[in-house]
Amino acid sequence: MPATTRPAASHSKNPGSQSALRHLNQQRLIECLLSGPATQAELSRQTGLSTATVSNIVKIMQGAGLVSTEPVTSSGRRALSVRLNSQGAVAVGIDFGRRHLRVVLASLGYQVIAEETVTLPLGHHAEEGIAAAVELLDKLLRQNGVERRAVVGAGAGIAGPIDRRSGTVAQGAILPEWVGFQILERLERALELPVYVDNDANLGALSEVTWGPHSGVSDLMFLKIGSGIGAGLIVNGAPYYGAVGITGEIGHATIHEYGAICRCGNRGCLETVASTSTMLELLGKSAGRSLEPQDIVRNALAKDPATLRVIDDAGLAVGRALGNVANLIGPEVIVVGGPLAGLGETLLGPIRRGLVRHAVPVVGETTTLTMSSLGARAEALGAAALVFQHAGISSG
Amino acid sequence: MPATTRPAASHSKNPGSQSALRHLNQQRLIECLLSGPATQAELSRQTGLSTATVSNIVKIMQGAGLVSTEPVTSSGRRALSVRLNSQGAVAVGIDFGRRHLRVVLASLGYQVIAEETVTLPLGHHAEEGIAAAVELLDKLLRQNGVERRAVVGAGAGIAGPIDRRSGTVAQGAILPEWVGFQILERLERALELPVYVDNDANLGALSEVTWGPHSGVSDLMFLKIGSGIGAGLIVNGAPYYGAVGITGEIGHATIHEYGAICRCGNRGCLETVASTSTMLELLGKSAGRSLEPQDIVRNALAKDPATLRVIDDAGLAVGRALGNVANLIGPEVIVVGGPLAGLGETLLGPIRRGLVRHAVPVVGETTTLTMSSLGARAEALGAAALVFQHAGISSG
Repeated sequence: MPATTRPAASHSKNPGSQSALRHLNQQRLIECLLSGPATQAELSRQTGLSTATVSNIVKIMQGAGLVSTEPVTSSGRRALSVRLNSQGAVAVGIDFGRRHLRVVLASLGYQVIAEETVTLPLGHHAEEGIAAAVELLDKLLRQNGVERRAVVGAGAGIAGPIDRRSGTVAQGAILPEWVGFQILERLERALELPVYVDNDANLGALSEVTWGPHSGVSDLMFLKIGSGIGAGLIVNGAPYYGAVGITGEIGHATIHEYGAICRCGNRGCLETVASTSTMLELLGKSAGRSLEPQDIVRNALAKDPATLRVIDDAGLAVGRALGNVANLIGPEVIVVGGPLAGLGETLLGPIRRGLVRHAVPVVGETTTLTMSSLGARAEALGAAALVFQHAGISSG
Repeated sequence: MPATTRPAASHSKNPGSQSALRHLNQQRLIECLLSGPATQAELSRQTGLSTATVSNIVKIMQGAGLVSTEPVTSSGRRALSVRLNSQGAVAVGIDFGRRHLRVVLASLGYQVIAEETVTLPLGHHAEEGIAAAVELLDKLLRQNGVERRAVVGAGAGIAGPIDRRSGTVAQGAILPEWVGFQILERLERALELPVYVDNDANLGALSEVTWGPHSGVSDLMFLKIGSGIGAGLIVNGAPYYGAVGITGEIGHATIHEYGAICRCGNRGCLETVASTSTMLELLGKSAGRSLEPQDIVRNALAKDPATLRVIDDAGLAVGRALGNVANLIGPEVIVVGGPLAGLGETLLGPIRRGLVRHAVPVVGETTTLTMSSLGARAEALGAAALVFQHAGISSG
């Protein structure tokens, strides 16, 4: 039971059964309050919880700034009306990229209060990234008049797998300088906030079912195609982390048994044939100069044949890997994100052909494949959603 | 929330939020009662539910024969003690195979009351299978003095995918005569019981975490290698069905892009290289006679080189597909079942090599691979467990 509601792969507090129960009960109250203020007696009726339990949880939530209460008269009797604080509870979302840092401030109900991105040097160490995050967060809070005590917590996204057992960045990260770093502990100390850490693809998935257009979807996969390829899974409505917190490593699906050596140590992984790095390497050779992901998008829109062919081959390989995924876990929606999202149908087309070619027919027919509309904001927004999820606010 | 506790892919009743809430609350009461009888006041304290809610649910459970109550004195006051009926609630588990039918009667706490298997002709129609099930169930109930009103429901396993939207057996079933058959509706009418239907691999997975040695495991995959290859998934402690109820179709992972045509319509699927049918076809040619799965086990134990080679090749291919699976969903345990389970390490060895070769290193290292100890009983026991799951009794 706690496992299904635990929102973060690697938060340091281990929820015992008592706190898991309180968390579950708090979530039920919040779900009721999302449709408007209610008295404690009404909350008790709607949830089946005793009035003493409701009153206890309301006190705790009030202390945390999540709700405020107001004495009212209901059916001629004195009662306490409870309402969610949309301004009082702010979540911080941080996206640590290879060359950028993005911070958003979000309020309850999924409203962005502030958002800013700064550039970081390629190959920067984790400590530099964290120092920049502390500085940017302080600036945003100050500029927008948000008090620190209103901040519920911070979510942080990393372009790499997080080992849930140790709270460290695991081998295989796109940020090799961060591998082995105690990201969770270090960030909690620097920000002086409860911190939840997750990888970029998981946060992309979470942002699609919270901020994005797929909020009713309970089984969704977010596929990020960038210099690495990774997937985030929403399973039964919640992010899914597997046994040790490492899931969605579709970038390391074997495509060519004797293909190129991958950074993971295996051969012929999907990343070696379909990442933006591979595409840029192939196209850069013939162009005679170094290219950027946005060049792929621009040249494809200009109908450059080599670019279109490289996209087609990459898309088919991605589709093949997705076909196997769809056969295994049957997601309702697969959302493709990352720097190539601007390609739209030019990339989705070959992915769809590959998917249909390799999936069991009924699975291929029933899986919706679409491009993310959240762009480069997906990870930071997902990081903020992770905080609300942990606070028990799972719907916007 | 309801999605995570929904036990059956294809039960006809659609749980609304009220019944889902009652089901959730009932499950919490049952979890408390599994450690022994308790008064209604104690149940209220332990769950945070109001005494009115507890009293209501206890009445409903009493009506269903799940619990019995007894007036007691607690701290000098009159109270009602509630206890789970281990004898009063019986689940039926039915396993429909290609050539057999197995029925088990199980009581609460996962005790087998009776169990029997009968042979059915190869290629029999679904109606024959159902008629045989009705007859065998009546006989077992009569012989063991179990009253019909004590039966909570029946679970049924089919060697093929179930389309959750329609409650029918989907294309790709090992029982081609059953495809398109309204299994759920027809079985409910014939047995006059609430029925829950699932495919054999899902039930194998469920039996491993209920009857089997992996009851503490929340993320498990059960891989059945037979004339077809399919997997059942336990995700966050519950069977996982994806968007349309078709998951675990690892038998159709592409191994050879231009390999043999598979019964699913694709090419080079895992089944075309590693199913028992393929192994038997390869070995039968050189043996000059038709072989059975038990011949593979016997000849392998006798160290027949061709048999060992065929097992090795099949195992490596299975391991490759499992590597991709483990990368994606990171199960804690993968259990291998089916008619070759008797091969033990002879089959597990190459599967493990393939898994480690194709998984991201940390995933390969942390995934436990083991042989099922439940043998041919896995599906029928899992079918009985499905009934208890639906009744809200998820732990044994």
